[in-house]
Amino acid sequence: MTPPPASAQPPPTLPRLLLLDVNETLSDMSGLVPAFERAGIAAAEVPVWFAGVLRDAFALTALGDRPAFADLAAASLEAAYGGEVVDPVMSAFTGLAPHPDVLPGLQALAGLGVRLATLSNGSAGVARTLLADRLAEAGTPALVEAYLSVEDAPAWKPVASAYGYALEVLGVEAHEAMMVAVHPWDLEGARRAGLRTAWLRRDRGRWPGVFGVPEIEADDLTGLVQHLTIAGRRE
Amino acid sequence: MTPPPASAQPPPTLPRLLLLDVNETLSDMSGLVPAFERAGIAAAEVPVWFAGVLRDAFALTALGDRPAFADLAAASLEAAYGGEVVDPVMSAFTGLAPHPDVLPGLQALAGLGVRLATLSNGSAGVARTLLADRLAEAGTPALVEAYLSVEDAPAWKPVASAYGYALEVLGVEAHEAMMVAVHPWDLEGARRAGLRTAWLRRDRGRWPGVFGVPEIEADDLTGLVQHLTIAGRRE
Repeated sequence: MTPPPASAQPPPTLPRLLLLDVNETLSDMSGLVPAFERAGIAAAEVPVWFAGVLRDAFALTALGDRPAFADLAAASLEAAYGGEVVDPVMSAFTGLAPHPDVLPGLQALAGLGVRLATLSNGSAGVARTLLADRLAEAGTPALVEAYLSVEDAPAWKPVASAYGYALEVLGVEAHEAMMVAVHPWDLEGARRAGLRTAWLRRDRGRWPGVFGVPEIEADDLTGLVQHLTIAGRRE
Repeated sequence: MTPPPASAQPPPTLPRLLLLDVNETLSDMSGLVPAFERAGIAAAEVPVWFAGVLRDAFALTALGDRPAFADLAAASLEAAYGGEVVDPVMSAFTGLAPHPDVLPGLQALAGLGVRLATLSNGSAGVARTLLADRLAEAGTPALVEAYLSVEDAPAWKPVASAYGYALEVLGVEAHEAMMVAVHPWDLEGARRAGLRTAWLRRDRGRWPGVFGVPEIEADDLTGLVQHLTIAGRRE
């Protein structure tokens, strides 16, 4: 049997369900750079803007609100750069492409017998646009069984009720599900809600020590497939 | 009587207390640029880092935690740029200078008979280091009567109990206090907690439409002094 790739982590068991975050985890935000640059905004502003949208969203979440992602994203663009950039940037946002590892990764994960669903702080429509047509073209239209959004949950991730909503819809216990995300705050929330966790690094440096360590660390979905393939062989 | 400067806002009444945010509102974060650049990190990363620290802090706040600002800030630096940048950047952070309008602005505000205190999501020590020696050198050591931190409150701003803690310590009712900040999320929390609000723009564009409109908008403390001087003349 092959050992786990470059890691001291014990080989995991296969989860019943992988719950995948969408923005940045599956979608490639570098696709926003041309829209920013066409609007005369430096490419370096993309991560400032996106971190600010989440900052404001979590501030409102801490106040008990459940804002609409698109409203916050648009208001933040307008406040920082002017109203004329809202439509072109939001169009680019809803038209982002998945990272190159996403389609083959999802197919390999489904091949292991794991159920797949997305859970986003954005709308379900953005996730469906990102994946559904591409999966249909690849002949695997039902690979992702549900595109879920916190718009239908009591609160945004990382609040426990966001994950609880998805688990209830999908009929899965927390310990049977693994949250997959590029954002440490998302995995922190999932971990506290009792889910298993897999961090996709996507060249973002190291894990921040203020959050609980994730069960799996992988470069991308290809790396996650390797971890879980070993788990599948053990079962 | 002089009309309010370039604004359709009615002249405000004088608050009993001004509660001042610290990071970016009083301190000039551009002082971090040399520390980032000496560590080989682009200046454009300063706002990405700071927005990310607040994003993660508010995610934890939404989970019911009350993290230490310095711990989060250091963990975020280490995760993104490596452990060797933590000490030089955190030293630069605690050694930031106030914006040029801050000392004369505080003196003019105190001259109107308004009580002054700071309330930060960071430590009280950072605020004291920023202001106390400079105020003492200017011969007005007691101008700011208290340097308060959410470290002594039940939660971070923008949660209501953070403002409630400061009001209780200072013996002031919410409607007698005005929160002064550069960050819209801070004023949103203060407004919901019943405080009056003054936004310092500091060249940050427009007010984001997802938050309730602040009572006063000013470019900086000099602009706030103008608004409140008019209020003082009316009383």
